[in-house]
Amino acid sequence: MKRIGVGLLGLGTVGTGVFKALKNNQDVILKRTELLFEIKGILVRNPSKKRNLEGVQSYITTDYQDVLESDVQVMIEVIGGLEPARTYIEQAFEAGCHVVTANKELIAKHGLELAKKAQKNGVQLLYEASVGGGIPILGTMQHFLKGSRLHRITGILNGTTNYILTRMTEEKASFGEVLADAQHQGYAEADPTSDVEGLDAAYKLSILSRLAFETHVPVDQISRTGIQDITPDELAICHQLGYAVKLLAKGEQFGEKGPVSLQVGPALLPLSHPLAKVNGVYNAIHLEGDLVQDVTLMGQGAGEQPTASAVIEDLCNVFRLPYLKNTCSDSTSGLSVTDEGGSRFVYVKTKKPVSRNLKEIQQSLSRNGYTVERLSTDPETGRNLGLIVRHWDSAYECSLPEDLDGDMVVNRPVSGGQFADDMDVHEPQVILETL
Amino acid sequence: MKRIGVGLLGLGTVGTGVFKALKNNQDVILKRTELLFEIKGILVRNPSKKRNLEGVQSYITTDYQDVLESDVQVMIEVIGGLEPARTYIEQAFEAGCHVVTANKELIAKHGLELAKKAQKNGVQLLYEASVGGGIPILGTMQHFLKGSRLHRITGILNGTTNYILTRMTEEKASFGEVLADAQHQGYAEADPTSDVEGLDAAYKLSILSRLAFETHVPVDQISRTGIQDITPDELAICHQLGYAVKLLAKGEQFGEKGPVSLQVGPALLPLSHPLAKVNGVYNAIHLEGDLVQDVTLMGQGAGEQPTASAVIEDLCNVFRLPYLKNTCSDSTSGLSVTDEGGSRFVYVKTKKPVSRNLKEIQQSLSRNGYTVERLSTDPETGRNLGLIVRHWDSAYECSLPEDLDGDMVVNRPVSGGQFADDMDVHEPQVILETL
Ligand SMILES: NC(=O)c1ccc[n+]([C@@H]2O[C@H](COP(=O)([O-])OP(=O)(O)OC[C@H]3O[C@@H](n4cnc5c(N)ncnc54)[C@H](OP(=O)(O)O)[C@@H]3O)[C@@H](O)[C@H]2O)c1
Ligand SMILES: NC(=O)c1ccc[n+]([C@@H]2O[C@H](COP(=O)([O-])OP(=O)(O)OC[C@H]3O[C@@H](n4cnc5c(N)ncnc54)[C@H](OP(=O)(O)O)[C@@H]3O)[C@@H](O)[C@H]2O)c1
Repeated sequence: MKRIGVGLLGLGTVGTGVFKALKNNQDVILKRTELLFEIKGILVRNPSKKRNLEGVQSYITTDYQDVLESDVQVMIEVIGGLEPARTYIEQAFEAGCHVVTANKELIAKHGLELAKKAQKNGVQLLYEASVGGGIPILGTMQHFLKGSRLHRITGILNGTTNYILTRMTEEKASFGEVLADAQHQGYAEADPTSDVEGLDAAYKLSILSRLAFETHVPVDQISRTGIQDITPDELAICHQLGYAVKLLAKGEQFGEKGPVSLQVGPALLPLSHPLAKVNGVYNAIHLEGDLVQDVTLMGQGAGEQPTASAVIEDLCNVFRLPYLKNTCSDSTSGLSVTDEGGSRFVYVKTKKPVSRNLKEIQQSLSRNGYTVERLSTDPETGRNLGLIVRHWDSAYECSLPEDLDGDMVVNRPVSGGQFADDMDVHEPQVILETL
Repeated sequence: MKRIGVGLLGLGTVGTGVFKALKNNQDVILKRTELLFEIKGILVRNPSKKRNLEGVQSYITTDYQDVLESDVQVMIEVIGGLEPARTYIEQAFEAGCHVVTANKELIAKHGLELAKKAQKNGVQLLYEASVGGGIPILGTMQHFLKGSRLHRITGILNGTTNYILTRMTEEKASFGEVLADAQHQGYAEADPTSDVEGLDAAYKLSILSRLAFETHVPVDQISRTGIQDITPDELAICHQLGYAVKLLAKGEQFGEKGPVSLQVGPALLPLSHPLAKVNGVYNAIHLEGDLVQDVTLMGQGAGEQPTASAVIEDLCNVFRLPYLKNTCSDSTSGLSVTDEGGSRFVYVKTKKPVSRNLKEIQQSLSRNGYTVERLSTDPETGRNLGLIVRHWDSAYECSLPEDLDGDMVVNRPVSGGQFADDMDVHEPQVILETL
């Protein structure tokens, strides 16, 4: 048995989970790893806040030096944000401490420099909890996919937006209504911008890209669309046609050491795709590579216990698993933003019944560079037109020819093409015609 | 860089995949692990068989001693079966060699003894490829779920039966037809007994139970039902009512260090369950525990490349990850076979229209110990009755009261209850009434 002194920086959602886990699950951890973790100090901002945690008071301090100087071998950073988290982590390295963090923003923005500083000081920096909550995705990529060249990541990486989209679909409620209720129930932050606009997912995608493609793409170079303008109508139309709408984080590498494209935005997934059924606060990551072919990991992407689970695993693995050397290059390697496959789903409310001029529509579309893969019209009104189109230049944004007269109500990329032909896609309830 | 001599025992599907991977993916393996694997000898049974593998001939031998004596640090056993695989592995241990194997039968039946022998000789025995093909399920349980007490496993562990059930559902074809075609196409063995009767899945479940529950349950104590008698009618009825039928491997531990129940058999899963959409040759494992809550891993459960991926990861991890001590007790701890939740789906073709005597049916059922959770009748004939029932004694097998006159066409356990209320369950197309 080895005793390990632990410093805990932050005692919010994740910090509380870690504190409880080190107490309640100490026996199994000890049995399986022969490591006994002892908390030496806990840093908080507000020392007089009431904490419903037995035995916590004697550890609490507001002075980082107290924690740093209390015989700590590993520091857990669960404060969040860039500062003072970053400075505290660097000071921990300098004091010879390993660091475990859940801080996706910091790791996405300064992970490479921090990893170098850790290496220079002969200590480890682990951050499993920063992506996918309880899902051991980083560990899996680092230790169980070393023989595969990964070329594509598709992920649902943000629980808040997935929860909102799931409830909007279920309840046919508007984005605003569901968001307000989610905030009320604690599923969304008071300031939901980072989640809703896809920034949180972009942080995580940037981290995944470093491991999967060994390429660093700064967050501001990730193409990003939020979910604010999605309507319950759009969700209903897509569902009826056999698709789920998800905020997808997609990464693709074109050839070994080739350029990498990273995007976050709402996309249609065939209902038969492994990620289409990932609902509520669940996260999932689908990886594709040459040897393993494809692997999907799914679990709870946030919350006190799942996130604490990832922190605890890192805590043990600092002392169990080999130090990882950084194989990721610092520089962005020729980022190109290209949509996967280039298919888009477009839904138009046309002014004239569609059925009368299908030929003209097709001609107009093809003049403008579109191929129609699938088309459906509403048999009752004849005025609603759903199209899966592919444009020759695979542009990420597409607009329809002007002579196709109508309001465009949906215009989204379609992902996961290879699953589109599977059996479980609902047959659309509108007439399907191939032009 | 460290050079490692490798012996390869067997050059069938998996052996070929490993040989190719060590050649084609050597560069990434070397870059990420600093290990250079060099094949020293390959053992086969038939030396004159034509092998379509460049450069393989010079390694081939039919004498195990040739391989054992050629400066090998790790032996890959992909022959399969109990003997001579077992003896070869023991001889490798005695010669100070680590062993990586894909042999589920051997590990399920003699894994504990072999692990002890490895430990005695100061070497490792790894067997990731024995469960779930390319899915790194064993590694995940051993290295990334050490802080969680797992209490339930639900898995689709056999690709052949999953492929057959998927095609039977899609094509409304009979078991016999699909099996014959699957054999023809190489998705099923010439002798499919072990797959079809659930033995292959039972081997894998036994291995998972040792890691998840630290309890050894011998394969012959796993309750087991095959898929031979499933009809396309049954699949259609279940699908219409919102369920998929899967050959599920289920393990549950009742309390810490408590008794463990392991079962393999066809079961209904609500279509919203993460495993319900796992189709074709895919495998998936859903784990539930106290800290992580739940995690699902999914991927290709067999085949040359995915299985080779698991072997390659083990090969690297023998030299990278800490030796695992066995925490599993030898003896079965109070096995009790209890169905999860105890719900069953029963479908009866009644002689009289059901609607006329619903009350009597309910009374008859409750006299016999059943509670009805859900009931549906076919509005057209009125003679078909679908019931979700729960029996007070949770018996694994249930029969209906004799005075409920009719042919029982389906009688299966229902799993994954917590997902049953999700949005994506198809609304049944028959009338739903609650008694
Ligand atoms: N919540 C999740 O489910 C989740 C999941 C994955 C990753 N993460 C990441 O985990 C980190 C923590 O998240 P959280 O949800 O636990 O945050 P939180 O609930 O807001 O807790 C933050 C904690 O840090 C303390 N703190 C804040 N500023 C400080 C300062 N300047 N000096 C000292 N202590 C300070 C706070 O002290 P007081 O208690 O005194 O206010 C509080 O205890 C973030 O990086 C987040 O992105 C969270
Ligand atoms: N196939 C899969 O997708 C898969 C997936 C997971 C796990 N596994 C496991 O992996 C193992 C190998 O499966 P496989 O499908 O690769 O089997 P396979 O295609 O039947 O190949 C078996 C190989 O072992 C050799 N062999 C058989 N008996 C031998 C003996 N007595 N002495 C020396 N060599 C002998 C054969 O030699 P010849 O070539 O001369 O006949 C052949 O090369 C099994 O334990 C299986 O359960 C397979």
